[in-house]
Amino acid sequence: MSGTAAFADSRAPDIEFWFDFGSNYSYLSVMRIEALAAARGVRVRWRPFLLGPIFRDLGFDNSPFVLQKEKGAYVWKDMERQCRKYGIALTRPSIFPRAALLATRVALPCADREWIAAYCREIMQLNFVHDRDIGSMDVVSEALGKLDLSAREIIAEAQSDANKQRLREQTEMAAARGIFGAPTFFVGSEMFWGNDRLDDALDFCASIAARE
Amino acid sequence: MSGTAAFADSRAPDIEFWFDFGSNYSYLSVMRIEALAAARGVRVRWRPFLLGPIFRDLGFDNSPFVLQKEKGAYVWKDMERQCRKYGIALTRPSIFPRAALLATRVALPCADREWIAAYCREIMQLNFVHDRDIGSMDVVSEALGKLDLSAREIIAEAQSDANKQRLREQTEMAAARGIFGAPTFFVGSEMFWGNDRLDDALDFCASIAARE
Repeated sequence: MSGTAAFADSRAPDIEFWFDFGSNYSYLSVMRIEALAAARGVRVRWRPFLLGPIFRDLGFDNSPFVLQKEKGAYVWKDMERQCRKYGIALTRPSIFPRAALLATRVALPCADREWIAAYCREIMQLNFVHDRDIGSMDVVSEALGKLDLSAREIIAEAQSDANKQRLREQTEMAAARGIFGAPTFFVGSEMFWGNDRLDDALDFCASIAARE
Repeated sequence: MSGTAAFADSRAPDIEFWFDFGSNYSYLSVMRIEALAAARGVRVRWRPFLLGPIFRDLGFDNSPFVLQKEKGAYVWKDMERQCRKYGIALTRPSIFPRAALLATRVALPCADREWIAAYCREIMQLNFVHDRDIGSMDVVSEALGKLDLSAREIIAEAQSDANKQRLREQTEMAAARGIFGAPTFFVGSEMFWGNDRLDDALDFCASIAARE
C-alpha cells in the first residue's frame, strides 16, 4: 500500500518472509534477516500471518512445543544456545505462545514501509526479551511510539474491518501456499521452513538473481 | 562389549549419536558425522534405536512426515536441497519410513566395532539411494558381505533373545533421555536434535574437551 519503499532498486531479488510474532524461531529470523539479506543484495518482503489457525487446520489446538512436552522442554534449551550463538538476547516468555493479533494487524498493511523491520524487531524483543504482553494496545502503542510513529493513526488503520479481513486472507494464503510452521521463506515458489534455512534461502535467492 | 575399539585415545571427548535407519535426517548425519567428528578430535558413540515406539509413546502412529501431508511434501524438497548442499546422493525411497529391525539389531551390539560407521553408511545408502528393503535378511547380509564380514555369525548374534531385549532397553533409554526424534546427539547431558545441530553439538563437545 502507501509508504516509502524500503529499497530503491526494484530489480533486487525478493525473499518472502512469513512469520508469526508469537513464534520463537520467527523471533530469531526477525532479528537476523535484514542484515543477512542486505549483505546479499536481497530485498525482504515481510509477510506477517497468524500461525494459530494454520495449526488448527492441521488438527493441533496449540503449538507443538506446548502439546509435546519433550519437544517443549528441548526447544527452550535450543533457543538459549541459538541465541548465544547469534548474540541475541532471550528471556523465556511467561506466556507461550503469545497472541499478537493487534501487533500483526499493524504489521500487515505497513509491510512495505521503511520502519517495518525495526517495528517487527521491537515487538519481538518486547515478547522474547522483556516478557511484555504484545497482544495489548498499550504495548503495541509503546512500540510504535518508540519509532516516533503516530500510534493512534496506525492502530486505527490496523483495526479497520478491511484490514481485519485482509489478515484473514493473508493467513488463508499461508495455508494455500503449504505453510505449516514459522518462519517460512519463499523464493518464487521454492519454500524453506525454519530459521535454520534462512541462510540457504537467501543464498538461493541471490544465486537466482546472479543468473538473470 | 567385544570388538576392536575404533579409537585408541580413550581421552577423546565423546558425542552420542542416536539414530534410526528409517529416518531421513538420520541419513544425512550418518553420512556426515565421522569426518566432522574426526576433524575435531571427537569420538562418536553410535546409538542405534527405533523411533517407531518413541512416536507411538508420543501419540503418533507414524512419522510426522507421513501424518502431516504439508510437512511430508516439504521434507523431500528439503532433503533434495540438503543432499545437494552436502554432496550426498538421494533417491526418495518407495516406502517411507522403512522398518529396519534386523539392521538395527546388528548395529546395536557392534556399535564399538571399527566397521560400525561403514556399516551404517552402507545400510543408509541401500535405503536412501538404492531403494532396497533394509528390513530384509538378504539386504542386511549383502551389506555385511560388502564389508568382508561374516553375515551369518553377526546376524545370529543380532537375533539372540538377549540382543532383542537389549534393543528394547535401548529404545526405552532413548525415551527416558527425552528423545522425541532422530537424529539426536548428546554431549554429556546436553541434548541436540536434528542434523541441523550436528555441527553445534560437535563444536560444543570439542570446546568442553579443550577446557578439561
